Amino acid sequence: MRTLEYDEQQRALLLIDQTRLPHESVLVPCRTAEDVAHAITSMQVRGAPAIGVSAAYGMALGAQAHASADAQAFVQDLARIATLLRGTRPTAINLQWAVDRAFARGQAIAEQSGVAAAKVALLTLAHEMADEDVAANRRMGAFGLELVPTGANVLTHCNAGALATVDYGTALGVVRAAHEAGRGIHVFVDETRPFLQGARLTAWELHQLGVPMTLITDNMAGHFMYRGKVDLVVVGADRVAANGDVANKIGTYSLAVLARENGIPFYVAAPTSTVDLSLKSGAEIPIEERASREVTEIVGSSIAPAGVNAAHPAFDITPARLVTAIITERGVLRAPYEASLAEALRGEPRVAA
Amino acid sequence: MRTLEYDEQQRALLLIDQTRLPHESVLVPCRTAEDVAHAITSMQVRGAPAIGVSAAYGMALGAQAHASADAQAFVQDLARIATLLRGTRPTAINLQWAVDRAFARGQAIAEQSGVAAAKVALLTLAHEMADEDVAANRRMGAFGLELVPTGANVLTHCNAGALATVDYGTALGVVRAAHEAGRGIHVFVDETRPFLQGARLTAWELHQLGVPMTLITDNMAGHFMYRGKVDLVVVGADRVAANGDVANKIGTYSLAVLARENGIPFYVAAPTSTVDLSLKSGAEIPIEERASREVTEIVGSSIAPAGVNAAHPAFDITPARLVTAIITERGVLRAPYEASLAEALRGEPRVAA
Repeated sequence: MRTLEYDEQQRALLLIDQTRLPHESVLVPCRTAEDVAHAITSMQVRGAPAIGVSAAYGMALGAQAHASADAQAFVQDLARIATLLRGTRPTAINLQWAVDRAFARGQAIAEQSGVAAAKVALLTLAHEMADEDVAANRRMGAFGLELVPTGANVLTHCNAGALATVDYGTALGVVRAAHEAGRGIHVFVDETRPFLQGARLTAWELHQLGVPMTLITDNMAGHFMYRGKVDLVVVGADRVAANGDVANKIGTYSLAVLARENGIPFYVAAPTSTVDLSLKSGAEIPIEERASREVTEIVGSSIAPAGVNAAHPAFDITPARLVTAIITERGVLRAPYEASLAEALRGEPRVAA
Repeated sequence: MRTLEYDEQQRALLLIDQTRLPHESVLVPCRTAEDVAHAITSMQVRGAPAIGVSAAYGMALGAQAHASADAQAFVQDLARIATLLRGTRPTAINLQWAVDRAFARGQAIAEQSGVAAAKVALLTLAHEMADEDVAANRRMGAFGLELVPTGANVLTHCNAGALATVDYGTALGVVRAAHEAGRGIHVFVDETRPFLQGARLTAWELHQLGVPMTLITDNMAGHFMYRGKVDLVVVGADRVAANGDVANKIGTYSLAVLARENGIPFYVAAPTSTVDLSLKSGAEIPIEERASREVTEIVGSSIAPAGVNAAHPAFDITPARLVTAIITERGVLRAPYEASLAEALRGEPRVAA
């Protein structure tokens, strides 16, 4: 199944609980906007594109629960739901983008055609966005394929796979396309502390797909680059600023610096829904700070003395100058990113936040 | 107590079991050379200086167990014990250095004054080496102090503290000296996957000493450097080649690259017993490959799907060009390291391996 699917009978969004992989495969049913908000906050669903589409379903589910037929009351309620969903995680812009798009659609239809029509339209929009995401990932895979030589050793960080999206993946979409094209690739998978998305999710996906891989700790990536064992790095993104600066999972910046030092191309695979032209640079992107307990405990066991201070920035910023190219569903973009990003997004007026 | 202490009554080397810290403080008694070899292999004792001195005690314990009074048979047995101990871990040169030094002393005394005298001499030598190590660390601390500004944010990796030595520490000796001198420092502690020496051991030491600290995952170091939160990096070493290339815990190379990128000084604190002038460069230093299970499991829990491939190089090489200075017990050495290392070791003919 897809990472997230709407079940008509249950009237629920079903999510693969990513906190329980790889050892247990459990579906979480979200019947309300609050359920979806909880699933995003607790990282049962994560990955910028996946939380964007989940939030669109959250808007649809919240809308279904609205009782009155008054358009104004409906729009007010929809604004409350939008605020709830926007507040779940701050870094990935796809979340804002999806919520804004759903709110605008819901408001317009409610005012023009009434509340019942808006409820239908919001569910239809969520379905559309889910399908758009899969299609965008497949296009990214096709565009990214040209960047992956035969026999390449690819290094990736965190999980930008099917589990980070509705299906197929962004960075892992490129990996998957290369594997399916018979390029004979091998993937170094950073385990990605503290949440271990690499060890738990990316390793699980690649293992299921039969892609040859080696799991490493994050601090081994530089060593393998220095030894000439890595041909390219490809990662996803949570937000890309207008100048091409990239917010992505903590550790991404270090990989970009190490890739540059070792003459290795560093690619970011991200749909245009991840681009935020309203921010001039990465310095303006909010970095989520998560609980320090996620650092001092692993799989429920404490790994540090009681009472020690720990930090947990969940993302970092990679400056555009370290990014070799950004792979989008509209093509492979190169520096200067101000121009190439603006060109790629031309004719797509973004909904105001 | 010290990390390792000889107990006259028990005729045993007592080691703090570092695999059980920080949650349990347990002493391991080593009564034979084989016990010491096991403690080193299983990382109950680790850290280049600590395993060097432990091996010297291993030589002494092995010698005590020798039954015959024949010098030639004794020396043959000592050679067997030396081979056993040298084979425990390949990267840290202190181990070879200590074993070679003990073997040469034991052989010389046995041949000149007999087996009984050699047995006494070997235990005396181990005691001397333990005391030398503590003295060397305190001198490194004093020399390193000049490199630590008031209010500095210091980043360290792995554990190069009291637990990696007999007492006081190398890199953490510098930290400790700065803290004791009232410099008002704060330390970022890399957790240091896969063995978590930072989270388990360095955090424990600093917490006990009352040094302000923040535990981070390894992949956060670059983020904090980029944000201007780190003033200097100081790490230990397992072996330093004649050209100044440094073998140290996996992840060290990445820190050095990130420090250079961000204009942050990168210091290595290591006693001259860690220098191996017989190797021209780091390319000749053997890198230990440990069990992949140490990557796929944390605190006994599996973090990856069953059957995935994982790599576990335990060390990496940092090229000398990225090392701002090497802090030794004979002063702070600067590039060109061929000259400064040779000068620091002049008059110390190394025992041939």
